[in-house]
Amino acid sequence: MRGRKIKAQTGFWHNAWRYKREEPSLEKILMIPGPCDVEQDVLLEMSRQVVCHYGTEWTNFYNQTCDLVKELLNVAGDVFIVNGSGHLALESMVLALGERNDEIGIVDNGNFSHRMIEILDTYGIKPKVLEIEWGKIVTPEQVDEFLTKNPTVKSLALVHSETSTGVLNPIEEIGRITKKRGIIFAVDAVSSAGIVPIDMESDGIDLCATASQKGIGAPPGLAIVAASEKGLDFIRKRKKPIPGWYASLSIWDKFRREQASFQPYSITMAVNLVFSLNKCLKAIKEEGIAQRYKRHNDIASMLRMGLKELGLNIFCKEAEATPAITVVEIPEEIGTINLINHLKNKYDILIANGLGKLKGRVVRIGHMGKNARLVNIMALLRGIEEFLVQ
Amino acid sequence: MRGRKIKAQTGFWHNAWRYKREEPSLEKILMIPGPCDVEQDVLLEMSRQVVCHYGTEWTNFYNQTCDLVKELLNVAGDVFIVNGSGHLALESMVLALGERNDEIGIVDNGNFSHRMIEILDTYGIKPKVLEIEWGKIVTPEQVDEFLTKNPTVKSLALVHSETSTGVLNPIEEIGRITKKRGIIFAVDAVSSAGIVPIDMESDGIDLCATASQKGIGAPPGLAIVAASEKGLDFIRKRKKPIPGWYASLSIWDKFRREQASFQPYSITMAVNLVFSLNKCLKAIKEEGIAQRYKRHNDIASMLRMGLKELGLNIFCKEAEATPAITVVEIPEEIGTINLINHLKNKYDILIANGLGKLKGRVVRIGHMGKNARLVNIMALLRGIEEFLVQ
Repeated sequence: MRGRKIKAQTGFWHNAWRYKREEPSLEKILMIPGPCDVEQDVLLEMSRQVVCHYGTEWTNFYNQTCDLVKELLNVAGDVFIVNGSGHLALESMVLALGERNDEIGIVDNGNFSHRMIEILDTYGIKPKVLEIEWGKIVTPEQVDEFLTKNPTVKSLALVHSETSTGVLNPIEEIGRITKKRGIIFAVDAVSSAGIVPIDMESDGIDLCATASQKGIGAPPGLAIVAASEKGLDFIRKRKKPIPGWYASLSIWDKFRREQASFQPYSITMAVNLVFSLNKCLKAIKEEGIAQRYKRHNDIASMLRMGLKELGLNIFCKEAEATPAITVVEIPEEIGTINLINHLKNKYDILIANGLGKLKGRVVRIGHMGKNARLVNIMALLRGIEEFLVQ
Repeated sequence: MRGRKIKAQTGFWHNAWRYKREEPSLEKILMIPGPCDVEQDVLLEMSRQVVCHYGTEWTNFYNQTCDLVKELLNVAGDVFIVNGSGHLALESMVLALGERNDEIGIVDNGNFSHRMIEILDTYGIKPKVLEIEWGKIVTPEQVDEFLTKNPTVKSLALVHSETSTGVLNPIEEIGRITKKRGIIFAVDAVSSAGIVPIDMESDGIDLCATASQKGIGAPPGLAIVAASEKGLDFIRKRKKPIPGWYASLSIWDKFRREQASFQPYSITMAVNLVFSLNKCLKAIKEEGIAQRYKRHNDIASMLRMGLKELGLNIFCKEAEATPAITVVEIPEEIGTINLINHLKNKYDILIANGLGKLKGRVVRIGHMGKNARLVNIMALLRGIEEFLVQ
C-alpha cells in the first residue's frame, strides 16, 4: 500500500506532499467522533452576556429549547437539559432503569454500552448483559431471544450509534419488540440525535440520552435526557427515588413538576451553552431532518468509497454502519498513531485512535454536523493518500 | 419609610423617578447572588472554536488552569474541573466525606448547608448535624463542643459564604480545630473563592468545592473541587470507592492518576468554559487577591452604609457578613417582590428574593467580580431610594 505507484506522485502533488510547515496552527478540524466543529453563528451565542437562570424570560427560553428537542426526537413526555457531559446523560438514564432488585438489561457491543455496565457497577447494580461481538449490530432476533430467556428483565438499554465500533443498532425493530413486551426501552443517542431520525413515540423509546456537542452541533457542556410519558410514569411510580442528586432523574423531574414556570431545575444553568444549543436546534429544523440525514449518509458513503479506493477496510459492514462516524482498519505496518500525527501535523485535521480493545487497530473519523461536508472529506482523503504513498 | 421627605424629590430627580420606559431590555445587571455579569474579554473566550478535550495541547491548558486554581486556594494536592454546576461540586465533596458507617458532620446554618444534608439523604446517608440559627455564623467554640460530644465524627463540612443568609463562617479558626483533632475538613467556597482569601494549606482545608460563575467571574457551567494531599489520601484509602460515577471523586481521581498527561478526565470537557475560566483566573492574579479582597470589602461596606441611610437593616451582624452578598430585611408593607420588580423593570438591575424560610422577608444583593464596583451600587441605591420615597 505504502509506495504504491499513482500518477499524482509527480509535479504539483509531489511538491505539495513534500511541503513542510514550520508552525502548526492551534485550531484543528475536528473529525474525531466528537466534539465537532461548531458553526460561527452558534459560537457567537456563547459570547452573550450571562443572564439569570430563573424567572419568566429564562424559563420561556429554556422550555422553548426543550420543546425543540422534543420535536427533534418526537416525544410527548419531557426533556431535561443540564450542565454536564454525555456521560451524565448516560448515567441519569441507566440509573433510572430499575430499583435495587429489578433486572436491567444492557446490550454490550462497544465501549459506550460497556460504560453503562461500569456506571451501574459503581452503584452496586449488576445488570443482565447481552454481549455481542464488537463491530456487529445487535439483531432484533437476538434481543427477542435474550428477553425470552430473561423474563424478569424490566428494561433494556443500548447505544444507538456506537462510536467505538461504528455500528448503528436497529432501534426501530428493537423498539417494536420491547413495546410488545411492555419493557422500558432506553437509548443512548449521544452521537445519533440530529444525524439519524429518532422517533421516540413510534419506536417506543422511553428514555433517550444525548449531549450538545455531536450530532446537534453545539459546544460541549450540556447533558440532555428525553423521557416519554411512559418513561416519566415509570420513574414516578418507583417505591424509592433514584439514588443520588445531580444524576437522578427523580430530582430533575421533581423540580420540573414543582417549579417549571420559575426555575425548571435548581442548579445554576450554563445559560450560554443553552443559547448555542437553541441556535443549533433551530438550524436543524431549517435544514430539515430528512435533508440532514441524507447529507450525513451521502458524506459517509463518499468517504467510505474513497477509503476503499485507497485499499483500506471499513471495520463493520457498511449496511450496519452509523452515518456519524467511520471506523477504518489500519494495518499494523502503517500504524494508527503515525497516520493520526501526519494528518494533525500537516493538515490540522484531527481523527481519533481506536478505543479499548480496538486501540492501535483502527482509526475513527467523525463526520457530523459542520464537518459532514465534501470539502472536509476530500482534504482528509488527500492527506491519507499522501501518507500511504510516502 | 415610603413617603419619607428628602431633598431629591424636586427638580431633576423628581422627573427621573417619574420616567417610564416603554421597552425593557432583555439583558440585566446581575446583582443576584450568582451568576454574575462577566467581563467582555472573558465572554469572547467563549466564542473560540471548539478544540479537542484530549491530547498534549489540551492537557497542558487544562492542567495549567487547575494550577491557577491551586494557586488561588493555596493547595498542594489536586484540582478537578468538570462540566456541572456548584451543586455537582457540593455533591462530589460531601459524598467523599465518609463510607456507609462513618460519621459525617455538617454545620447547618443556611439553605446551602442544608442542601448538603438533603444530598446525602438521597444516598441514604444521615450525617451528624450541628444546627445554628439562620443569620448567625458558627463559632469555633460551637464546633469544638460539637466534636467533643460526637467523637465518632471523622469529617466536617460547612459553607464558607452562605448566600441565603449573608454570613461568612470563620473557616480559619475552625480549620485549626479540625486540624488538631485530625478530622477531614470540607468547605463549600462556591461564593467565596476569588473574593475572600482561602488558604487550604494553612487553614487545614482538605476538600474545597466551588464553581465558575460567582467569585471567579466566568460564565456558569463548571464545577470545581480542590483536594489537599490529606484529602486525596483519605479518598484513596477508602475500603470501597465513593458510590456513583459522574459525582464520584474516586472516579475523577482514578482518571487523573491513570491518564493525566493525555485526558485528565474521561468526559468531553466543556472546553469553551475552561477557556473563560482560565482567563478569569489570570485576571484575579493580575488584580492581586489582596486588592480584590479589599475591593469587595470596600464595596460591601459602602453598600451597607447606603442601605442603612435608607432606613433598612442588614440581616446578619455586619462583622459576620460575607463580602460577596448583602442580605437586607424588607418590612412586610414594602414587599420584596415589589422592590425586586421595580429595580428590574425600571433599572434592569436584578436582585434576588430570600431563599427558603427567608422568602418574602429579605432581598439578597450580589456584589461579586465585575459587579463589585461603585457604579453598580450607586445605581442600585438610587433605585431603592426612589422606590422607598414613591
